[in-house]
Amino acid sequence: MAVHRFHPDHYHITLGTHAPVLTVASGDTVETSTVDARGYDQTGAQVTERGNPMTGPFAVAEAEPGDVLAVRFDRLWPNRSRGWTRTRIAPHVLDPGCVADVDTEAELAEWHVDLEGGTVSLAQPHTRLAGIRWPLCPMLGCFGVAPDRGQAISTATSGPHGGNMDYRGFVQGVTVLLPVFVPGALFHLGDGHAIQGDGEIVGTGVEISFDVTFTLTVHKNRRVAWPRAVGPDCIMTVGNARPLDQGVQHATTEMLQWLQADLGLDAVSAQALLGQFVEYDVGNVFDPAYTMVCKVPRQVLDRVGVSLPDAG
Amino acid sequence: MAVHRFHPDHYHITLGTHAPVLTVASGDTVETSTVDARGYDQTGAQVTERGNPMTGPFAVAEAEPGDVLAVRFDRLWPNRSRGWTRTRIAPHVLDPGCVADVDTEAELAEWHVDLEGGTVSLAQPHTRLAGIRWPLCPMLGCFGVAPDRGQAISTATSGPHGGNMDYRGFVQGVTVLLPVFVPGALFHLGDGHAIQGDGEIVGTGVEISFDVTFTLTVHKNRRVAWPRAVGPDCIMTVGNARPLDQGVQHATTEMLQWLQADLGLDAVSAQALLGQFVEYDVGNVFDPAYTMVCKVPRQVLDRVGVSLPDAG
Amino acid sequence: MAVHRFHPDHYHITLGTHAPVLTVASGDTVETSTVDARGYDQTGAQVTERGNPMTGPFAVAEAEPGDVLAVRFDRLWPNRSRGWTRTRIAPHVLDPGCVADVDTEAELAEWHVDLEGGTVSLAQPHTRLAGIRWPLCPMLGCFGVAPDRGQAISTATSGPHGGNMDYRGFVQGVTVLLPVFVPGALFHLGDGHAIQGDGEIVGTGVEISFDVTFTLTVHKNRRVAWPRAVGPDCIMTVGNARPLDQGVQHATTEMLQWLQADLGLDAVSAQALLGQFVEYDVGNVFDPAYTMVCKVPRQVLDRVGVSLPDAG
Amino acid sequence: MAVHRFHPDHYHITLGTHAPVLTVASGDTVETSTVDARGYDQTGAQVTERGNPMTGPFAVAEAEPGDVLAVRFDRLWPNRSRGWTRTRIAPHVLDPGCVADVDTEAELAEWHVDLEGGTVSLAQPHTRLAGIRWPLCPMLGCFGVAPDRGQAISTATSGPHGGNMDYRGFVQGVTVLLPVFVPGALFHLGDGHAIQGDGEIVGTGVEISFDVTFTLTVHKNRRVAWPRAVGPDCIMTVGNARPLDQGVQHATTEMLQWLQADLGLDAVSAQALLGQFVEYDVGNVFDPAYTMVCKVPRQVLDRVGVSLPDAG
Repeated sequence: MAVHRFHPDHYHITLGTHAPVLTVASGDTVETSTVDARGYDQTGAQVTERGNPMTGPFAVAEAEPGDVLAVRFDRLWPNRSRGWTRTRIAPHVLDPGCVADVDTEAELAEWHVDLEGGTVSLAQPHTRLAGIRWPLCPMLGCFGVAPDRGQAISTATSGPHGGNMDYRGFVQGVTVLLPVFVPGALFHLGDGHAIQGDGEIVGTGVEISFDVTFTLTVHKNRRVAWPRAVGPDCIMTVGNARPLDQGVQHATTEMLQWLQADLGLDAVSAQALLGQFVEYDVGNVFDPAYTMVCKVPRQVLDRVGVSLPDAG
Repeated sequence: MAVHRFHPDHYHITLGTHAPVLTVASGDTVETSTVDARGYDQTGAQVTERGNPMTGPFAVAEAEPGDVLAVRFDRLWPNRSRGWTRTRIAPHVLDPGCVADVDTEAELAEWHVDLEGGTVSLAQPHTRLAGIRWPLCPMLGCFGVAPDRGQAISTATSGPHGGNMDYRGFVQGVTVLLPVFVPGALFHLGDGHAIQGDGEIVGTGVEISFDVTFTLTVHKNRRVAWPRAVGPDCIMTVGNARPLDQGVQHATTEMLQWLQADLGLDAVSAQALLGQFVEYDVGNVFDPAYTMVCKVPRQVLDRVGVSLPDAG
Repeated sequence: MAVHRFHPDHYHITLGTHAPVLTVASGDTVETSTVDARGYDQTGAQVTERGNPMTGPFAVAEAEPGDVLAVRFDRLWPNRSRGWTRTRIAPHVLDPGCVADVDTEAELAEWHVDLEGGTVSLAQPHTRLAGIRWPLCPMLGCFGVAPDRGQAISTATSGPHGGNMDYRGFVQGVTVLLPVFVPGALFHLGDGHAIQGDGEIVGTGVEISFDVTFTLTVHKNRRVAWPRAVGPDCIMTVGNARPLDQGVQHATTEMLQWLQADLGLDAVSAQALLGQFVEYDVGNVFDPAYTMVCKVPRQVLDRVGVSLPDAG
Repeated sequence: MAVHRFHPDHYHITLGTHAPVLTVASGDTVETSTVDARGYDQTGAQVTERGNPMTGPFAVAEAEPGDVLAVRFDRLWPNRSRGWTRTRIAPHVLDPGCVADVDTEAELAEWHVDLEGGTVSLAQPHTRLAGIRWPLCPMLGCFGVAPDRGQAISTATSGPHGGNMDYRGFVQGVTVLLPVFVPGALFHLGDGHAIQGDGEIVGTGVEISFDVTFTLTVHKNRRVAWPRAVGPDCIMTVGNARPLDQGVQHATTEMLQWLQADLGLDAVSAQALLGQFVEYDVGNVFDPAYTMVCKVPRQVLDRVGVSLPDAG
């Protein structure tokens, strides 16, 4: 259970079978950093090209195709005092022909991040929001493993391998389960957001560089078709597709599989439970593939007497 | 501010320009009852045909096309001890070709509702869920006004006029704002659910007859294009369409309009606020039109210093 | 086989259970006229409100719910010399945020129709298209029967009952088969186009009033779930829904049913035939419900030795 | 204008920045062969893994990012006498829950291809289609250039770079225009179909190995955002996305750009022309990204006096 400290000196704008920057053992922890979506680091310097540059990939020695890689986010925290967002709601999120005006020329707005106070505020004078402090809710917008078939997939989009899901629920304390397609799994991460609404409808959260600590564990005898996650309050499955309807299909099918095949619920109970207690979160409706998250509260599982195997 | 007690003796399976059963004044309260989605009443007798039969319509004397009708749900509570659900997740909610098996012949499952204890439990022996008690969360699946153009629209679906939105957030204490298309507005209601998950993915909540008390108020100088709602914790806009993506567009456009044009936020603040604090709920992904709900927490509005006009 | 001449004096902007203007016998022919989408008649006078006003409905004495109504379009021809189109491609047909500029203030463009020469030409000076003559291809944009459940559905949209399908293939010589939901079937028609492209992407064809002759025949022992049609070159099934993907599903399912259950092809042949010879036409991608048409060439059926029962 | 004869000895199942197998000059012609979608060659031997293996890539010396690569298909012809199809319509092409039965255990059906007679016939005894001969319409299902951002994209799907579009209109005599993202362009090709219906709804055409001759020409001063094509009868633009609606948007926007910015039509004429004369073809509704083709007949362009620059 070693702890590795890794300082990145190059980045990738695809998730693919890139040379690993570090190979760890299952159960090891990595402390590293990520740049923001435009390639700016902790010091505010642009150190790589824009487009969600990823730190990594990190290989796990034991991981083989068909395994599951568990990624526990031990710590996610911005590491500088300035973030930025876009200023307009994306046209495809509004009714066709509706133009969202902004009374500014600027494509980007700056936000002040108070790392000690744990708050974020819009640094845009002459607006009602200016200076109002909001609690930080740091999350990772983009992470995942190398995809199948030798693909290298843009960090603008997402799929069964993870990728640019831009889901505000991927926070510290959550463990994500990803399918392993290549030896070593090759985990990439980046695109930290200080805060973000559902859907990432302006095309960004508050984009900022992060310090990240995570733990990688290989599960040899489990299988997932889409990303799953275990959080303190719920279990989650993730469907990445367009339209959102297809994301619903992937995420719900994966959750039904989890409840029935993996957690042993009978068919009637699994479907009755989902029918009456399922929750959906919209990850993003901005990226080429949208992200829909299917959730079951752990309280519900507890009441039914379903126990989760160790997730991390 | 009269209180009217109305006992229905006929029902409608469209929302349309039907003869009103009662005409009230703006601000009046109505106490009435609804049958379940298959037309069964409080006594368990089928009193009308199936297909979401509606109680009403109720006319409001002051309502004219172009006004807004506010409907405050003062009390929503089941009035019998047996509800039912379907037993399978709808095929269009799962991956194409995925068949959700059930180990029962029954299309419907019965649930026991404890009106005094305020709980509901699956009455299906030999299943893990059998007998587990869950808190009641009563909601109305279908309500709305007569649509425009003289249309009569099936209570299976929904639109700008409301209808079969099957959103679990339409609970007691919420005030819904609907566009008025015809003189009197003509408010219909029905399809009560003792509980329901997001999406209504088995095609039902726990379907049951209800006692309902609601208050109807006409706002002469407001305009809404899609249903809006004010709850204790958030404000909501509703988009009814397929695919879900189009529901996102309608609901987000309506919310942007609310924040900017009606509540007076500047364009940068309105979009920054939505970008970083918006929440989406999936109403239903079962009916012909899906329902997507766009929400802003009232805490967020409070912090920005935006005050809501009286909603009810 | 009587021929009825009917001169309309009122119109409907919903398809619904309206009082029939005429009741005919199965096999009878009706000669009548339709106004344009804005309610202007042959003389250029506005005689009713805009929004696809329909002539009819026409009842057929023999028609009962569960039957099929065959409508043969014997003659479709404009009856005046001026038509009009909108001037912009609808924003939802272009990439979000793409604005289709026009170098005119006018929302509508006028077209000259030469009824004798059988041509149509854009009457918009200072444009490249001005004065170029194109052959007339007259078609009906909107027609159908009263829908089920007592609904009255706007003539802006479509469904299993037909409606505003805006499909350029509904021309003279085609026989359309519609499900019957109410006694008499109640056939409505209107919204003639002198020409129209696939998809009706500017929101109109060349809109114009029409003279129409059609023949109504009831088939007591057939069933259709969606409109079908028999043309000189192909058979067609129609799916009306959003997104287009769902239109594909409805139309393809209906065609598979036709080939297998109704025309007696074995399952392997029906699917192999569709897989390798099916054709799809985009009816409209403008209206609330889109229209997708699934076609099989009659040459293909002939080669397989499948004979069509008399369609009309 | 050299002619190169290339015999492949390895294949790729992604379109990516792979080492070119041959570098040619702009204007050169290549004669080569492709294996079928499962990796079987002319002799019926499996020579590589399944999943649409591609021949190539071929580099063009002059091609730089930002240019356009014109690919003229000079000859497309199967080179063996056996092809195969799947036997079921894909479940996502039919109504959810509709199961397309087949009265065979076989997942694949064999077709006989008569190369001399130019016909194809289903070799499945005891079916109505068995032995009926149909004219060959050879087309390429998958081809394209290396995508942007260093991506390697599965040959199961498609995008702005081309890929698995499975469009029956990509036949001999057509010239396709592709955006160039990497030096040399890197053209890949494969997945030949002896015939195929619109939509590729059984998931295959008649899959077979091909002999292919094509000519690659670089256009330094043109730009395309999506694949365009020039055929003998029409010009075409291609949108690859889900849902089909988004494919419509991409293809229509690209065609509007072509007519207005590249061919010089005024805005009113371009939109009036598309509104009344556009045609859409469904490429595929089977693959992860669907393909929609927007077409304008060359007759229409001729009548307007628009001349195409040399396409090849």
